[in-house]
Amino acid sequence: MRILLVGAGGVGTAITRIAARRDFFEHMAVADYDPTRAEAAVAALGDAGSRFSAHRVDASDRAAVTALLTEHRCDVLLNATDPRFVMPLFEAALAGRAHYLDMAMSLSAPHPDRPYEECGVRLGDAQFEQAELWEKSGRLALVGMGVEPGLSDVFARHAADELFDEIEEIGIRDGANLTVEGYDFAPSFSIWTTIEECLNPPVVFEKDRGWFTTEPFSEPEVFDFPEGIGPVECVNVEHEEVLLVPRWVDARRVTFKYGLGDDFIGKLKTLHALGLDSTAPVTVASDLGPARISPRDVVAAVLPDPATLGDRMHGKTCAGTWVKGTKDGAPREVYLYHVVDNQWSMREYGSQAVVWQTAINPVVALELVAAGTWAGSGVLGPEAFPARPFLELLTAYGSPWGQREQ
Amino acid sequence: MRILLVGAGGVGTAITRIAARRDFFEHMAVADYDPTRAEAAVAALGDAGSRFSAHRVDASDRAAVTALLTEHRCDVLLNATDPRFVMPLFEAALAGRAHYLDMAMSLSAPHPDRPYEECGVRLGDAQFEQAELWEKSGRLALVGMGVEPGLSDVFARHAADELFDEIEEIGIRDGANLTVEGYDFAPSFSIWTTIEECLNPPVVFEKDRGWFTTEPFSEPEVFDFPEGIGPVECVNVEHEEVLLVPRWVDARRVTFKYGLGDDFIGKLKTLHALGLDSTAPVTVASDLGPARISPRDVVAAVLPDPATLGDRMHGKTCAGTWVKGTKDGAPREVYLYHVVDNQWSMREYGSQAVVWQTAINPVVALELVAAGTWAGSGVLGPEAFPARPFLELLTAYGSPWGQREQ
Repeated sequence: MRILLVGAGGVGTAITRIAARRDFFEHMAVADYDPTRAEAAVAALGDAGSRFSAHRVDASDRAAVTALLTEHRCDVLLNATDPRFVMPLFEAALAGRAHYLDMAMSLSAPHPDRPYEECGVRLGDAQFEQAELWEKSGRLALVGMGVEPGLSDVFARHAADELFDEIEEIGIRDGANLTVEGYDFAPSFSIWTTIEECLNPPVVFEKDRGWFTTEPFSEPEVFDFPEGIGPVECVNVEHEEVLLVPRWVDARRVTFKYGLGDDFIGKLKTLHALGLDSTAPVTVASDLGPARISPRDVVAAVLPDPATLGDRMHGKTCAGTWVKGTKDGAPREVYLYHVVDNQWSMREYGSQAVVWQTAINPVVALELVAAGTWAGSGVLGPEAFPARPFLELLTAYGSPWGQREQ
Repeated sequence: MRILLVGAGGVGTAITRIAARRDFFEHMAVADYDPTRAEAAVAALGDAGSRFSAHRVDASDRAAVTALLTEHRCDVLLNATDPRFVMPLFEAALAGRAHYLDMAMSLSAPHPDRPYEECGVRLGDAQFEQAELWEKSGRLALVGMGVEPGLSDVFARHAADELFDEIEEIGIRDGANLTVEGYDFAPSFSIWTTIEECLNPPVVFEKDRGWFTTEPFSEPEVFDFPEGIGPVECVNVEHEEVLLVPRWVDARRVTFKYGLGDDFIGKLKTLHALGLDSTAPVTVASDLGPARISPRDVVAAVLPDPATLGDRMHGKTCAGTWVKGTKDGAPREVYLYHVVDNQWSMREYGSQAVVWQTAINPVVALELVAAGTWAGSGVLGPEAFPARPFLELLTAYGSPWGQREQ
């Protein structure tokens, strides 16, 4: 297998470090808008970097991406950029006759009149619209294959296959006790993406009603996370699992709740009240003259790059899927989860916990695709494939998952 | 008198409307970085605009400003820009042998090691350093001559001259009950300046100790404002009066407290925690390529222009000076104040209350200078001049002030 990795930020860099220890692929070309980032990712691999090369590419330039795929004879494009670039990369992969894998799906747009009641354009809609083209080409677009979405969807499929006869609710629950020394406020993941998922109307699925939306930060609940993280207040946010899981797994209700905490929610609400979450350009004075810039890009620019904070971070992050239903006629409630301790991921891989946890899952998935264990064509979510091989390989990577009966 | 007004934003435009009704000057040249703003201000005067002309000028370009003063034979430069441009305009006026008047003083810089205990560079320091040059040239720089600083300083001088024998404390107190229809958050005054004064370490004067600083938003107190505004929580902020009043008026303590309210304080704290209050340039993508921009300029760009909100605003704004001391051996406490009702200022002048209240005071002061009632040379604050003529002329302008014994 030959891979084109687009994006050498925090997640992309962690992908190279994880993949370098595995022998399922022949070559990985690492490309970024900023070539120094791609070069730094490859250089950091040292002797283990002989199967990697660094390149420059503009992820929004379909033709350039397709040319890079062809030039390096890549079988698959692995997208590790932010969600703005999903569509150009997804389309470039198809044009280049490559498989495609991403960790976030094409963006949503709120309902024009009833944004907090009905869906407008849903996450992934633009990708699923092209499913037939992918099926015809015999190529696989494996979408939402990070940790959340990704491993969380694998957990949902595993629960349906092996742990439940009937499922009442699947609720993805994400929480952490991470702190960053020396910063008042330093998000541990891309603020651009965090704003996108937290301020968009959260989406909920109910079997009788289909997909619908609510007010941001709705239905707060305190969820008790394992391995010493403890109780964290979680609220509904927009996330791919709610769109993916019901397509392949039978459940009466699917939700996603994120353990943001009061302080973070307050800051996001302020950004929104001021209009600083907006991606619509405004004109400001610059060294180049009056320039059109996106306020959200400025928020990202003033905050520290989360990928560089690993040395100052402490604590653990937990991603997981809570499932409620029945097995053999008896009620059952299970939380399937994956915890990463920042101290461990920094020591083992030099990557902070949140980006490392995102990065390991697409590498595991690619190894399953390379082996033919996961095979298919079209636009498919992680829950379209058998879960057990994935969970076993994840454990073999040295990163086991857990199951808690509750 | 011939006047060069630099700045045709909200305050500058209100100045033209107030001045157009007075006959103490011969000509007012109105200049702005954006010539369409200057033209709009003059055009709005209609038939009353014959003594006004519109021009383009970059307020940071000393030579261009001096040339404009000479070209239009101006006796005085009236600075209605934001405080970043105080020093170039102040120096351009001296070079052009004109008097100078502003409504905010040269900017402060915090103490490098003990920002919340000691002053670093104080507001106005850079201007007072040049006092001798102004004295020698026989020209007057009347600094801090808006409403606060400005009218508030006149009140302090009036209290010292006529109402008290000994003054224990002079506390400027500013509060409002303004609301803006249709906006979650819409500051009624320049957000650039509001951030500057609220997030800098607040300065306090005590006779035994001199000037010193505290933490932002310190010493909260509820002050009861007159004319139906009622009680508002006020906190210490950095303001020119604390630097000006002790130079000419004998008081044991001088403070400035602003009625910001919890919600506004929370938003300012968030901007600060994220670094969005900063004026240090960051690089972001723009239509012109990677551009260096100031995050605080972006905050200003995403918020509605306060000068345009008059039609949606409701309520009153109050500026005033609370004085505590003794008169004829008996304790006395007085609040001298000036209230503007937005409905009135919109109907009478088409200007919203906060900018109108700032704008009237420099016009009154210029009229006193033109008449020779206020005369002097050097760098002087409003309290360096007799207060009674100012207060009488303010009343004659149709905008009376009040006095409350407490």
